[in-house]
Amino acid sequence: MVCKKGFADPILIGDKAKITEAARKIGMEVGQIEIMDEPSNTGCINKSLELVRNNNADVIMKGKVTTGEIMKAVMDKEKGLRTSGIISHIGIYQVEKYHKLMFVTDPAINIAPDLNTKIQIIQNAVDTAVKLGIARPKVAVLSAVEKVSPSMQSTMDAAILSKMMQRGQITGCIVDGPFAMDNAISAELAAGKGITSEVAGDADIFMAPNIDAANILIKTLVFMFGAKACNVVAGTRAPIILTSRSDDSETKYYSILAAIILGLQKGSSNK
Amino acid sequence: MVCKKGFADPILIGDKAKITEAARKIGMEVGQIEIMDEPSNTGCINKSLELVRNNNADVIMKGKVTTGEIMKAVMDKEKGLRTSGIISHIGIYQVEKYHKLMFVTDPAINIAPDLNTKIQIIQNAVDTAVKLGIARPKVAVLSAVEKVSPSMQSTMDAAILSKMMQRGQITGCIVDGPFAMDNAISAELAAGKGITSEVAGDADIFMAPNIDAANILIKTLVFMFGAKACNVVAGTRAPIILTSRSDDSETKYYSILAAIILGLQKGSSNK
Repeated sequence: MVCKKGFADPILIGDKAKITEAARKIGMEVGQIEIMDEPSNTGCINKSLELVRNNNADVIMKGKVTTGEIMKAVMDKEKGLRTSGIISHIGIYQVEKYHKLMFVTDPAINIAPDLNTKIQIIQNAVDTAVKLGIARPKVAVLSAVEKVSPSMQSTMDAAILSKMMQRGQITGCIVDGPFAMDNAISAELAAGKGITSEVAGDADIFMAPNIDAANILIKTLVFMFGAKACNVVAGTRAPIILTSRSDDSETKYYSILAAIILGLQKGSSNK
Repeated sequence: MVCKKGFADPILIGDKAKITEAARKIGMEVGQIEIMDEPSNTGCINKSLELVRNNNADVIMKGKVTTGEIMKAVMDKEKGLRTSGIISHIGIYQVEKYHKLMFVTDPAINIAPDLNTKIQIIQNAVDTAVKLGIARPKVAVLSAVEKVSPSMQSTMDAAILSKMMQRGQITGCIVDGPFAMDNAISAELAAGKGITSEVAGDADIFMAPNIDAANILIKTLVFMFGAKACNVVAGTRAPIILTSRSDDSETKYYSILAAIILGLQKGSSNK
């Protein structure tokens, strides 16, 4: 689909015989597509990183290697694609019940981020949203409650992150929190709790306090309520697409398109 | 509604003049209802605890006092309603997209439960589900992934809790985990990841690893997707109803009914 529409030129890396056979089975024409013969997973990953490093490819898409394998190589200080910041994952969802796209972070990479990591997770998500056309994203820092509690780290971190935005230490966005999910998605429910905020009921980015909370949220959106989904890895020198086997082809399609757009923008902002 | 149907006899505690005036405004007949005149929040709470202690009331329902105020009194070692175990919160949800009720715990009381607390959170939820008619509840211990990872506490706790059930240390239920939310709600998606489990796709109880994850999940179910909801506090000597101002009257109604059923069962199991 992506190739047919001319959005990208693929380079397939792997066991050439198996790839050709798989393509034949689904009746796909591979004559015009470049296939690099690499028998091992590690070989495939190293080849893809090399292509990107030498500007012979713009985006890496995970195939039948594990996320662990590819991310280990990506994180490698010499041969990887690290920048000075942290690498984080952002899921983008379209649900009928919300009036805009929901960017949820980080459901897949950072397990229990500390304050420093949260700052970078927000900045990665903001950069991503901006590149995808949202001028000044609104970031809701999520917790279980909307009041700051000295016994709940997530509420204190949210308060600190909001203030850091006000002081110009987090830029290009509006950050507010702590929000419980109801106040983040409904200005009316927020008002009922005495909260007035530009972010309440209009959040673009939903930052969960930990990987479990973010992942349970996105899996509920997608697998219970049929959200259309797209996945992005941010903070690397080139976009990486980490779709999983349980993702449907629509999710893979949207994820490739997002990566292409992010890759194009990346080029222009790197000059 | 509850009174009209004869399910309960209410005792209203608070400023009698204000209560009478509020009832008059909505055209409610209060002539037959017992109203105890108590001007202060603390007075109201203490009175309600005293009624329960002396077997003059079976259930306490929070009115316009805060959750913090009432829970502090409930937790009091002398005058409160503690048992030897911990007190936890269970939300019960009916959503179109799942074939049975979802019991989610703990979205409101235990912030970052350790393993010991998680054991009791599960046992409280199981006791509640059993009393509400589910013979042997299936408990999905949630995390961000379904493999055990030494760097993710939630996955290790889930593994331990599953084994404790197998060894008869957690009873009356089937516990399995770690599950990502997709495997918990779909046996097909679980099978796609090589997981066969009685719990996969058929969980009654969803135990989230922390308050943030549980709360974000339930707020999403209710306020984004319109789940019918009901709230229960477990582990106290009498049921306590902690509905919040943003709950609709249907939620309050179901919560009262659940508390009544739990209160009745409590009587019979205490002999």
